[in-house]
Amino acid sequence: MKERSERVAAVDLGGTSAKIGIVDRSGTILARDRVSIDARAGFEDIVGPVAMALAELLAGSGGGPPAGIGIGAPGFIDPDTGTIVGGSENIPAMQGRSPAAYLAGKLTAPAWADNDATCAAAAELAYGAGRGLRGFLLVTVGTGIGGGLVLGGKVWRGMRGFAGEIGHVSLDPCGPPCPCGSRGCLEQYASGPAIVRAWKACAGTRAAEAESPLEVARLARAGDPAALEAFAGAGRALGQALGGTVNLLDIEACLIGGGVADAGEVLLEPVRRSLRRYAYPLVAEGVRVIAAELGNDAGLLGAAALAWERLGA
Amino acid sequence: MKERSERVAAVDLGGTSAKIGIVDRSGTILARDRVSIDARAGFEDIVGPVAMALAELLAGSGGGPPAGIGIGAPGFIDPDTGTIVGGSENIPAMQGRSPAAYLAGKLTAPAWADNDATCAAAAELAYGAGRGLRGFLLVTVGTGIGGGLVLGGKVWRGMRGFAGEIGHVSLDPCGPPCPCGSRGCLEQYASGPAIVRAWKACAGTRAAEAESPLEVARLARAGDPAALEAFAGAGRALGQALGGTVNLLDIEACLIGGGVADAGEVLLEPVRRSLRRYAYPLVAEGVRVIAAELGNDAGLLGAAALAWERLGA
Repeated sequence: MKERSERVAAVDLGGTSAKIGIVDRSGTILARDRVSIDARAGFEDIVGPVAMALAELLAGSGGGPPAGIGIGAPGFIDPDTGTIVGGSENIPAMQGRSPAAYLAGKLTAPAWADNDATCAAAAELAYGAGRGLRGFLLVTVGTGIGGGLVLGGKVWRGMRGFAGEIGHVSLDPCGPPCPCGSRGCLEQYASGPAIVRAWKACAGTRAAEAESPLEVARLARAGDPAALEAFAGAGRALGQALGGTVNLLDIEACLIGGGVADAGEVLLEPVRRSLRRYAYPLVAEGVRVIAAELGNDAGLLGAAALAWERLGA
Repeated sequence: MKERSERVAAVDLGGTSAKIGIVDRSGTILARDRVSIDARAGFEDIVGPVAMALAELLAGSGGGPPAGIGIGAPGFIDPDTGTIVGGSENIPAMQGRSPAAYLAGKLTAPAWADNDATCAAAAELAYGAGRGLRGFLLVTVGTGIGGGLVLGGKVWRGMRGFAGEIGHVSLDPCGPPCPCGSRGCLEQYASGPAIVRAWKACAGTRAAEAESPLEVARLARAGDPAALEAFAGAGRALGQALGGTVNLLDIEACLIGGGVADAGEVLLEPVRRSLRRYAYPLVAEGVRVIAAELGNDAGLLGAAALAWERLGA
């Protein structure tokens, strides 16, 4: 039985692939793999191969069934049943289904699921830049913008598991319409695609020089005014959203993660400047804006952290 | 010793007067009084008369010293020492001082202080519209806009006791400047003075017909288009701020309190409509926007609730 309690299985479900791993209590990834996903496939065609790959990974790394299974996925997830109740437009077959229940049955171990950004916050708290912090918001900046909250040293999931959606905080009632139905959402100003849009709008005939947010970041680091302007706009919007958040919650740090966070100080510096403008000075004083630490592994480690948390470890 | 444990002293410190009271565990105000305050006076000239009036009230209502003393005051307050560390511009002598330490010494009982809106949230949780709720934000709409948060069935004070400042969440980066240093803060759109300003801007030659937010509310209830417009604007802004808040926190209710909340449905209805526009539909579904219940007594009862909470009752 010792083997069983020493490791969990973790799944980070994305729109094009699922990362899977075997993770120990300390957050060490003992084994890992990746399974391709056809986002238009049916539910069992998506989660069946994930279950099989996990079983192989477990068998290959020795020992019996895992102590538990943690799953991170995009969208709104009922933390009690693991059912994906909304926001899974990118993988339609997930709507109303529980990959946790499916994997629990196939691998005969308890399984839990949570929003991927909430998982990433749990990972930063347990293994990353959030260690020792009592209150922080992790913002994941990528194709979209997600968030996960830690309050009182614990992940705050909200009443129904939906907390953390800072990407859809409205920053301007007359701002651009958002697919969520609102206007001026943070995601419209500071996501990867928004940064590239802003670059192209400023760059004129040079627009083709950068096609991704990290290419824009490279130009910004070299001092390109149009690229700097694109990140200044994203940073301003992030700072406004985070300023409101710290006024409301009096947290001690904002962690910036997700793929676009690899831009580094080119993004963080304008966020810090903007946060100081939009937060109450006394409140802003105590707040650090720092990079998340776990990068691409945040989702996988967060799914593991979720399983360990639920197991009471 | 039985007497001692059955009641607390409560102080609701305002800019022109302090309400004081003796309150039992169930939230019944056994005795009450009011002490005038000269906001420009020195610290001891303000809190000395409050201490004397409280001593008289305690003596007159029989029994020994109270089990504890709770104090609600405007501004940012260190919950450990009760020191008012900022935001007390209306009573300059309070800056850097602890009315809690002063009253504890004079009345020989432990004393604690908290922001007045946080106290009001504690009161609604213990005795009012928040009973049985696990997560809500109380917004106090008056001359300014304050807020108090309840998360996981407990008052959330933040890392340094500063949480709840929804009045200074920025709703528009190009909005009107706010004395706090930011722009487009909720307070600029939905406070009592903002509602009167909006009425006067819309009412033209009829501007003098209403000079207070509740007079504007009376006209709005009678169907006056300019008065309805003033409340629609305030409700829109409140709904945008609350929409962002529920997206971030996934709470179950927003309570509207403070003097302007006496406007009733004329204010609440546009808030509900606007919240549904700015919150993620799935998140907004579960959220009720309701009136706070304790009215003018929220501050006093909240100060008492704070004392009972700290006493471990």
